[in-house]
Amino acid sequence: MKMDRDALNVFLAQDFPEVAHMFRVDAAQPNALTLRLLPSPAHLRPGGTVSGPTLFALADVAVYLTILSMIGPKALTVTTNAGMDFMRKPPAGVDLLCETRLLKLGRVLAVGDALIYAEGDTRPAARASMTYSIPPKG
Amino acid sequence: MKMDRDALNVFLAQDFPEVAHMFRVDAAQPNALTLRLLPSPAHLRPGGTVSGPTLFALADVAVYLTILSMIGPKALTVTTNAGMDFMRKPPAGVDLLCETRLLKLGRVLAVGDALIYAEGDTRPAARASMTYSIPPKG
Amino acid sequence: MKMDRDALNVFLAQDFPEVAHMFRVDAAQPNALTLRLLPSPAHLRPGGTVSGPTLFALADVAVYLTILSMIGPKALTVTTNAGMDFMRKPPAGVDLLCETRLLKLGRVLAVGDALIYAEGDTRPAARASMTYSIPPKG
Amino acid sequence: MKMDRDALNVFLAQDFPEVAHMFRVDAAQPNALTLRLLPSPAHLRPGGTVSGPTLFALADVAVYLTILSMIGPKALTVTTNAGMDFMRKPPAGVDLLCETRLLKLGRVLAVGDALIYAEGDTRPAARASMTYSIPPKG
Repeated sequence: MKMDRDALNVFLAQDFPEVAHMFRVDAAQPNALTLRLLPSPAHLRPGGTVSGPTLFALADVAVYLTILSMIGPKALTVTTNAGMDFMRKPPAGVDLLCETRLLKLGRVLAVGDALIYAEGDTRPAARASMTYSIPPKG
Repeated sequence: MKMDRDALNVFLAQDFPEVAHMFRVDAAQPNALTLRLLPSPAHLRPGGTVSGPTLFALADVAVYLTILSMIGPKALTVTTNAGMDFMRKPPAGVDLLCETRLLKLGRVLAVGDALIYAEGDTRPAARASMTYSIPPKG
Repeated sequence: MKMDRDALNVFLAQDFPEVAHMFRVDAAQPNALTLRLLPSPAHLRPGGTVSGPTLFALADVAVYLTILSMIGPKALTVTTNAGMDFMRKPPAGVDLLCETRLLKLGRVLAVGDALIYAEGDTRPAARASMTYSIPPKG
Repeated sequence: MKMDRDALNVFLAQDFPEVAHMFRVDAAQPNALTLRLLPSPAHLRPGGTVSGPTLFALADVAVYLTILSMIGPKALTVTTNAGMDFMRKPPAGVDLLCETRLLKLGRVLAVGDALIYAEGDTRPAARASMTYSIPPKG
């Protein structure tokens, strides 16, 4: 690993200040991490459920940080494909936890997937798979 | 059609006040519409490009409104699956246009897809396909 | 569980005779199973790698059987959405193993995902997520 | 265009003899083509509907040929991601037509999508989006 939990949280605060307050890396190990969403009213839909775009952002940032934990900070890495299944509405007022797995870390493409849980629930609220293009060295 | 362009814009303002300022339905016809994203600084990433979650929100709201244009306002309709390809970084300072097609409007599931363009560019910035679960009558 | 490993293999032979010779359920537990692909020349591309449609069939049958293991044989259950990432070409002459997880088993929709490995390799060759529509009772 | 309709059909017969009998390019223009599936009993499920893996193969071959029509025969181009929605069961005994669009043709990635119709039906039976990795020159 090139970046551990603390290094990832520092990277998030420095490079993504506009969203860093939403997220906190709770745990990181090789090829996997847990990212916590700290919901604020701006992320909620009527009824108190977390919005789809917020779930997307959670999965996207989580898999992105999982890649960076292995290759170091390469800010040009970009999302090229995303697939999500929304399976259960997360309840209001509960943190969401996103657990990732890095499935491929190639020379030009990286693929990971993630499950999102409402904290304390064993059934996933959403599933995501994400592909990133890694810029060439040079 | 159960709701035309003006009715959709009114619905957006009344039922989704937290995001209505971001979007405007430019045109609506049976099974298709064009939704405009009016970018604000909150939607931008460093370098001025529109963020992934904002592109997701644009596609999700656009296909959702396309369904409602045909079945009328059913606020319980929920996104169950989303797939997106991010193909070109949209430039800063330009409105984005999302053009939708409704591909299936079934009893329990509706499927649509969308292309997102930076205004004035003929090459799509992103592609999305979305599935929604429609609540049973009763 | 409504069907165990042996019951699933019997179901496969009886209800899907045209593909049953390709597949064998190696293990089944609640909400998860391992399906083995027994490759034949018809599934190979030039160079000896397993074709994309064969990988699709493997994931589709595997998640489908995982659902049936929990709800019993409902032959009308149909695939409505599929997402796959092809990450490493599986080598020729090796069985493929598909390991599934059932993520949601709802009243009308079921969602599962799967990883496909070449036997003996710890790195996944492909990833799949699948949604099925379950026919109403009655 | 580097390959027109006739060149694509010749390429299919020479480079993919194991599936060439299933497919025929009906029309090709820049960034788009129509591929016809000539169903045989091997592609059918009980009830006479075309199987999911056959629909996958149809979309995969169709978008792949669309890319090759623009860049010429590069047999190493490989599918990296596929997303499909299965919307209506195609009827038995009818040819299927797959209409593609090339959405991005980059240096390392190409993206296209497709709609599949039963011949004579205006409502799509399935939708697909496909990403391919293009090998570097060298």
